Amino acid sequence: MEFDLIERVRDLTAQARDDVLTGIGDDAAILAVPAGRELAVAMDTLVAGVHFPSGTRAFDIGWKALAVNLSDLAAMGAVPAWALLSMTLPDADRAFVEGLAEGFAALAAPHRVALVGGDTTRGPLSVTVAVHGFLPSGQGLLRSGANVGDVVMVTGTLGDAAAGLRCVGTGRGDDLVARLDRPTPRVAAGGALRGVATACIDISDGLVADLGHICQASGVAAELDPALLPRSEALRAMFADGDSTAFALTGGDDYELCFTLPSQHVAGVCAEMARLGCGATRIGRIVAGQGVRLADADGQWRAAAIGGWDHFAP
Amino acid sequence: MEFDLIERVRDLTAQARDDVLTGIGDDAAILAVPAGRELAVAMDTLVAGVHFPSGTRAFDIGWKALAVNLSDLAAMGAVPAWALLSMTLPDADRAFVEGLAEGFAALAAPHRVALVGGDTTRGPLSVTVAVHGFLPSGQGLLRSGANVGDVVMVTGTLGDAAAGLRCVGTGRGDDLVARLDRPTPRVAAGGALRGVATACIDISDGLVADLGHICQASGVAAELDPALLPRSEALRAMFADGDSTAFALTGGDDYELCFTLPSQHVAGVCAEMARLGCGATRIGRIVAGQGVRLADADGQWRAAAIGGWDHFAP
Repeated sequence: MEFDLIERVRDLTAQARDDVLTGIGDDAAILAVPAGRELAVAMDTLVAGVHFPSGTRAFDIGWKALAVNLSDLAAMGAVPAWALLSMTLPDADRAFVEGLAEGFAALAAPHRVALVGGDTTRGPLSVTVAVHGFLPSGQGLLRSGANVGDVVMVTGTLGDAAAGLRCVGTGRGDDLVARLDRPTPRVAAGGALRGVATACIDISDGLVADLGHICQASGVAAELDPALLPRSEALRAMFADGDSTAFALTGGDDYELCFTLPSQHVAGVCAEMARLGCGATRIGRIVAGQGVRLADADGQWRAAAIGGWDHFAP
Repeated sequence: MEFDLIERVRDLTAQARDDVLTGIGDDAAILAVPAGRELAVAMDTLVAGVHFPSGTRAFDIGWKALAVNLSDLAAMGAVPAWALLSMTLPDADRAFVEGLAEGFAALAAPHRVALVGGDTTRGPLSVTVAVHGFLPSGQGLLRSGANVGDVVMVTGTLGDAAAGLRCVGTGRGDDLVARLDRPTPRVAAGGALRGVATACIDISDGLVADLGHICQASGVAAELDPALLPRSEALRAMFADGDSTAFALTGGDDYELCFTLPSQHVAGVCAEMARLGCGATRIGRIVAGQGVRLADADGQWRAAAIGGWDHFAP
């Protein structure tokens, strides 16, 4: 059965790529990295009831499992190429596998990601994806390059996914639930930031937590003005300002990019991100010190509570 | 907590490699494939109660999760380089994670495998590993190259792991249980078979099933003489001949290599495999047709029942 499932997924996700020398069907895939390119590699697991609500559609699980991984490549500025997919399923439900494969394929196709291997096992529902992308040598976007004086920006809007989690099962907030279930990895945006951004991360754990990772890796602090956080019409229509701000600051699962750059590049990046359809917003700046600080109502800076997503939090 | 766990695993598995440009701690690893090398990539998941008995020591789970993946690289003839490790754990049990990391590291170290990324999530216990290895261009060992007239060989001994599964919890057969819990991937053997073997696979599902994959991919059949199957002293001491033959034919989890080659290379391969400490045994031959056939007591050939390991079998 394992072979049937993997072959079915392969059929649904067929992508012709010259750099796939041997694809699914042998003990390992054989792949060729183009000359002058480095390889960016990431792997993430989604567990039912932890990373997606029980009852999430198979299509959305397949989409999201790839999306969160492509988001990691986007945060490096890498161009996606290959993926591996391991599915652990309670039973051999063909309709479920096909739905998952269709969701995976729906996102893989526009990014020309070839599925080159994987595994199907029996057990409690979870999906692990590993992705590979290419980077021009030495041009990967790290977390560690932020400098004092840099501007902090984010793509898109923040907080929708956390708000969507509140809406699951209520019959309201479909746009918000869609952000939770089918996040859009900012692959083109990440590519456009190579050579411009000094540091970059994708927002999976929440803005404060993830910007905190940039601060820690770069040995700097960040000051954010919560009033500047970009929030969608849908979010602002359904939730009070305090709630939407909290979602935008600490809600996970947005998969927007948070990045730093010298101020002279802000206008150019805003124009480029608008052209790419996601937009970008200046939300703060990098200063000396450590941690993330927020402007309060009096204009004072105070340390932000992380409150991000921690799977092992009590 | 996630970061602590991954960093702890990183500390336990530290491997200095010049080709790891950015390791654990950013959104993705950045890696350099040497010039003239192709990349072999595989990923396998182990689920508690399916791929290892509940109660298996954390050390052994970590070892086995890497071993089954290195075995896939061995079957391609690839030289291991990098791994990603995703752990799904019911709780943040530091002793368990350390044990798992120690087992992973104990096998990673002699193969110079660098852990370059991964994930730690909460959920029912399972471990997914992705591995990357290098191949000289065009020299990967595929399943599809077996030719009529080739000899069929295997490394090491067969059936110990399946016998070990019978022994778990009985207090007997420690050597057999060790084969089940801590399989030895035949990495050096696989490398030595490049340019010699015409087809190769690792025995994870059972000899008949896995040799069947070679036959299917190569468009040939295989004839096996069960009397020739190499079986360990420990296996023969504990189980009757019929049982040990059944284990050797259809037991999974041996992680020996099964390969085909022209007969003129048999003597040289036997000498080389003896030098590498695993040995190799001629067990049959490739003929025209399809499927795997066994010699019965009358010297007649009959189709072998696969009876291999199928996670979705009823």
